[in-house]
Amino acid sequence: MVVQIIGVEGLPIINSGDDLASLILDASERQGLSIKDGDILVVSHIIVSRAEDRIIDLKDIKPSKVAENVSQYTGKDPRLVEVVLSDSRAIRRMASGVLITETRQGFVCANAGVDKSNVPGEDVVALLPEDPDFSARRIRDRIKELRGCEVAVIISDTHGRAHRDGEVNVAVGSAGLSVIRDRRGEKDLFGYELKVKRTAIADELASAAELVVGQASEGVPVAIIRGYSYPKSDASSARELVRARELDLFP
Amino acid sequence: MVVQIIGVEGLPIINSGDDLASLILDASERQGLSIKDGDILVVSHIIVSRAEDRIIDLKDIKPSKVAENVSQYTGKDPRLVEVVLSDSRAIRRMASGVLITETRQGFVCANAGVDKSNVPGEDVVALLPEDPDFSARRIRDRIKELRGCEVAVIISDTHGRAHRDGEVNVAVGSAGLSVIRDRRGEKDLFGYELKVKRTAIADELASAAELVVGQASEGVPVAIIRGYSYPKSDASSARELVRARELDLFP
Repeated sequence: MVVQIIGVEGLPIINSGDDLASLILDASERQGLSIKDGDILVVSHIIVSRAEDRIIDLKDIKPSKVAENVSQYTGKDPRLVEVVLSDSRAIRRMASGVLITETRQGFVCANAGVDKSNVPGEDVVALLPEDPDFSARRIRDRIKELRGCEVAVIISDTHGRAHRDGEVNVAVGSAGLSVIRDRRGEKDLFGYELKVKRTAIADELASAAELVVGQASEGVPVAIIRGYSYPKSDASSARELVRARELDLFP
Repeated sequence: MVVQIIGVEGLPIINSGDDLASLILDASERQGLSIKDGDILVVSHIIVSRAEDRIIDLKDIKPSKVAENVSQYTGKDPRLVEVVLSDSRAIRRMASGVLITETRQGFVCANAGVDKSNVPGEDVVALLPEDPDFSARRIRDRIKELRGCEVAVIISDTHGRAHRDGEVNVAVGSAGLSVIRDRRGEKDLFGYELKVKRTAIADELASAAELVVGQASEGVPVAIIRGYSYPKSDASSARELVRARELDLFP
């Protein structure tokens, strides 16, 4: 059993309104790669945010009084704080240099996923896509339209974690696959029935893709994962990966 | 850029004292795969635990009074609680059906990583290896001895996470690679210097390996990852992936 993770190289700088699916197909085909049924495309959220114009110039932001206060407490740029809080539904942790919020989609992450890197301009930041599942579905549907093949799409972001140091890539949007593989009821090697195993495969796929995205220079924002037989679903959403705060032992 | 994840099939049932490196080499070679310089072997902790005789029959355990109390509070088998607490240095969370501890190695996980699945016998459980970094190093050294090639080895386990639902595989032991790729100082696509990026590549590799381990029946406890150019290190340890409790915002 072999799973391949292939970096899609040579994508142009993405601008507002670009047809990502079409650009991804062109770039893959230039490197002799034709996207096939069952492929999984993992797309870094930053190019989705650029295509969807989720880019903000901090020079245009006038921080509120609340943002000024949080800025004083955390030491962060008050304009950035304004943008972060506008895209959050709750603050989970604040400390010097740290602002961990719950995004409108429910993800718990630093600065509501607002990113400075890979956006042009000194004071320019990128927000998460408004609805990353919708963004994933749009790419999936457009690939079907253009080439007639059924792929799954994951939109990824880089997150820190509780309890463990360093960051990993996780799924913030998805289309075409069940984000969790439910293995309860399967038997192990000795016939014991698995009781708790629910594997967050969309997160594992996002992490696997980072291996080609992260080892390259910053010009490889898309990976194709081939050979992984995933559970198909049109109803599943990356939001299933969010643990509701009231069920979280580390709220 | 292509990274391959290859499942090693046909390993025998592992018993106490088995030479894992040699069995992994044999099984890979039977499937026409010769392990090469730069390969990464991801090994499920369960076969390491079996080889190192970290297997306990709960029938032999007499729970302490503390274990009885924790058992009443959580509803868990008092003998299992005894084993879990013996392998933990702190309890982080207790609730009905839940016992999250800090293992002696520092990992925060359910039941101190003590596993029921893939061990033979009704009341038999597997503990984490005593020192998973040492276990990884032993496999790495033995492969060098037997075939003369330099590989990296990761010992993986399945962990739940705070904030996100479902489980993913992470690294609990490692040898031959830096578990974190420090990208601070690198420039992004627009020349902006990355300020915070420290990628937990050992965890991402463990998650990537799960894609072949988890989609198979339970007989594939080892994956080879090929084509990933990792930072080599003899000093790095999976314990670097542990965030010290005093630095954790979700202690």
